Amino acid sequence: MESITSHIGVVVVAGGSGSRMGGNLPKQFMLLDGQPILARTINNFAEALPGAEIVVVLPADYIDFWQDYARRFDVAEHRTTAGGAERFHSVANGIAALSDACDLIAVQDGVRPLATHEAIRRIARTAEREGSAIPVVQPVDSFRIVTAEGASHPVERATLRIVQTPQFFRAELLRRAYACAYDPAFTDDATVVEAAGGVLRLVEGETTNLKITTRDDLAVAEAILARRTEA
Amino acid sequence: MESITSHIGVVVVAGGSGSRMGGNLPKQFMLLDGQPILARTINNFAEALPGAEIVVVLPADYIDFWQDYARRFDVAEHRTTAGGAERFHSVANGIAALSDACDLIAVQDGVRPLATHEAIRRIARTAEREGSAIPVVQPVDSFRIVTAEGASHPVERATLRIVQTPQFFRAELLRRAYACAYDPAFTDDATVVEAAGGVLRLVEGETTNLKITTRDDLAVAEAILARRTEA
Repeated sequence: MESITSHIGVVVVAGGSGSRMGGNLPKQFMLLDGQPILARTINNFAEALPGAEIVVVLPADYIDFWQDYARRFDVAEHRTTAGGAERFHSVANGIAALSDACDLIAVQDGVRPLATHEAIRRIARTAEREGSAIPVVQPVDSFRIVTAEGASHPVERATLRIVQTPQFFRAELLRRAYACAYDPAFTDDATVVEAAGGVLRLVEGETTNLKITTRDDLAVAEAILARRTEA
Repeated sequence: MESITSHIGVVVVAGGSGSRMGGNLPKQFMLLDGQPILARTINNFAEALPGAEIVVVLPADYIDFWQDYARRFDVAEHRTTAGGAERFHSVANGIAALSDACDLIAVQDGVRPLATHEAIRRIARTAEREGSAIPVVQPVDSFRIVTAEGASHPVERATLRIVQTPQFFRAELLRRAYACAYDPAFTDDATVVEAAGGVLRLVEGETTNLKITTRDDLAVAEAILARRTEA
C-alpha cells in the first residue's frame, strides 16, 4: 500500500448554527453514541491521518462553548476558527488558519463522522497523485429535475453521483480557488475548484458516510455504528 | 379530511430474485424487526387503505416459497402473480391481475415498508383528484452528472428530486401507459406514464420512506422503526 508523504491539513466545516433536530444545540454538537458528532469527525481524521493539522470552523458564538464542551470528551488536538456568512467563507477561513507547510488539504463536513480510515487514506493518496479526489456514490433511487414552470423530467440515474466529503486537493489548487470571489452556485469545494479551472478526479465514496442533518439521520448513524461494533 | 372514494388496486413489486445482502434470500423476504420486509409493506397498505385489492408480483420460482413463508406470519389478504424480465413487465403483470373494478392504482416497491399511513392516503387523494401523484423528496447532498468522456458537471440541487413510491395513478391512465412497448429508459412508473403522454403531479414524499437494498439500509430501517415505537 502506497504511503502518504504530504503534510496534510484538514478543514472540518462545522459553521452551522441551525438545528433541524428540534433541540437548541446545533447538530454538530449532538451526541452520537455518547460522543459529540463533531468530536467523532475530528478523531476519525486524527486516527486516519496521524500528524495532520486539523482546523475546525465553528460559528463565532460557539467557539467558547465548544472549547469548554470538548474538554469533557476525548477529542484529538485541533485548532478552531470562526466561520463566515456562507460555507464558502467558512472554508476560506479554515484554509487561512492552516500552516503554509500543508501541501494537501482535506475539506470535511463536521457532521460526517462515519468515513472509514481506509477511505480517508485512499482519497488522500489519489489527490496526492492527481491533484484532487472527490468521493462520490451512485444513487439507488430514481430522480427528476423540476423546472420553474412546475414541470419535471427524469434524470438518467446511471450518470448521477452523490457527492460526499472528505474532498482532498493539492493545497496550491485549493488556496488559489478560494482566493476567487464567492458565487452562490458553489455548493461544495469541488464546484469552487472547478470554477478556478481545477480538474476534479471523482473517486468511490461510501454509502455509510452519512451526513447527519436530522434526527432520523442520527438514528441511522447509531445503527451503522452499532453494526461496526458488532463486526 | 377529504375521504377516498375510489376502488383502489395496489401492485406491490417484489420481482427481484437477487440479494445484495450477502445471504441467499432475496431482500424482500428478509426479516425487519421479526417480520418479512414484504409482509410489512403489504400490511402497511392494507391498514392505510382498507378494502384495497393487493397484488404482489414475485419471481415465478418464489411464489410457492412466499405462500408457505407468509403463512408463518400475520400477513394481510393479497393475491400473487409472477414477475417478468424487467420491472416494467412485472408491473404490467401486476396491473393485469387487478380486477376491472379498480379505478385508482398504486404501484409500490416491495422493499419500502416504512411509508406512513398518512402519506399513503394523502398521495391517493391527490391522484384521485389530479390523475397521478408521485412522491418526491429534496436531497440534502450535492450531486454531479458524469459524462461518457469521464468528465462531470454539478447539478443544481434545488431542482433535483428523489422519486419514491407509492406512485398512484388513475387506472385508465396507468393501464394505457403499460399497454405501450417496453423502453429501457423506464426506471419507474412515472417515466412509463409520461412516455404515454400522462401528466405527472409531484407531491411531498417522506425521507424515512426508505428503499431497503443493502444490510445498512436494513439497519437504518430498524432504527427508524425503533424510534416510531418509542414515540
